[in-house]
Amino acid sequence: MKIPEPIKGFVDSLSQLPGIGPRQAIRIAFYLAGKSKDSVFSLARSAERLGNLKICPQCFFIYENESDICEICSNPTRKKSVIAVVEKETDVLSIENAGNYDGTYFVAGGIKKAGGLTEMQKSRLDSLKKRLAATPGGKAEEIIIALSPTSFGDIASRIIESELSSYAVRITKLGRGIPAGGEVEFADPETLGEAIRRRN
Amino acid sequence: MKIPEPIKGFVDSLSQLPGIGPRQAIRIAFYLAGKSKDSVFSLARSAERLGNLKICPQCFFIYENESDICEICSNPTRKKSVIAVVEKETDVLSIENAGNYDGTYFVAGGIKKAGGLTEMQKSRLDSLKKRLAATPGGKAEEIIIALSPTSFGDIASRIIESELSSYAVRITKLGRGIPAGGEVEFADPETLGEAIRRRN
Repeated sequence: MKIPEPIKGFVDSLSQLPGIGPRQAIRIAFYLAGKSKDSVFSLARSAERLGNLKICPQCFFIYENESDICEICSNPTRKKSVIAVVEKETDVLSIENAGNYDGTYFVAGGIKKAGGLTEMQKSRLDSLKKRLAATPGGKAEEIIIALSPTSFGDIASRIIESELSSYAVRITKLGRGIPAGGEVEFADPETLGEAIRRRN
Repeated sequence: MKIPEPIKGFVDSLSQLPGIGPRQAIRIAFYLAGKSKDSVFSLARSAERLGNLKICPQCFFIYENESDICEICSNPTRKKSVIAVVEKETDVLSIENAGNYDGTYFVAGGIKKAGGLTEMQKSRLDSLKKRLAATPGGKAEEIIIALSPTSFGDIASRIIESELSSYAVRITKLGRGIPAGGEVEFADPETLGEAIRRRN
């Protein structure tokens, strides 16, 4: 049975996106094929607009305005010498959402599952180092390593910490412990151990 | 924090697709925003092409060719008087893939989670009835109800069976039992009960 070419093409494109498997891609393709031309075109338009976004050369977050850097980096009320190193753009949104952070960010890029840094992370770190070296004092006041505390996240955190150790007065990490609303009974031993060690 | 407008717009469009939640949509949006213009545009193009597909007026499968009906309905080797009623287009692909079916199809459309038929299913069934009434004899030789044996699928199967009862010489359903490669030990009681009842 011949699957229509446009379905195949779309499935190929779609399956390359994070978290979408070939089965879901086929389901979505047929769903869209059954929709009106207008709604399919509007999806295509909205995808196209993503191509016009820019990447901030300082923090590597995505932005849209006419300026050379993003809104957070150009905001005079944000502390430029406090930098949170996160893995991805959505982590920036989550921390912004928490509402109590007034520093800036550094989006390092996706963590490698095999340990070590990706080429993208290396080149972004180089640009951060150059930028910090050029500031008065040559150091940030504080660099917060805010990668997820997974096993690969922890490996990457340690590497990034040693890479940046001479570029910050102090390097901190996100607090660890029982999440808000979590129950002690169901916390895994590692989390509980951290919560006890970091009691305050 | 202001999320860039193109990200928001794409997330809104994307979250309407089957199986994509807002969180995954945001992840995909940022992923694409970080990609080259070219790859984003090629995804948009491939989505756009879906708008040019046609829906077969006989079986409601999606097709691309210049003919008025789809490739299966216009294939002279397929039995026109044997019709498998399936829920969705991907079910056609799965049955075609099994390789031993030489009848035609009728894509009824997504099953309602509250019982009863959707408007789309009703109008498609009406068109099937009219088409069968206009054939010599006024009936199909066999209608195979091939909806998934879930609880809602079973309700829809019974309704469709009674709707079509006077339009087919016989109405059959897909066999039920232990799936190929499945283990008796782990089969749920209902499946096992069916497998015993339908032993042959």
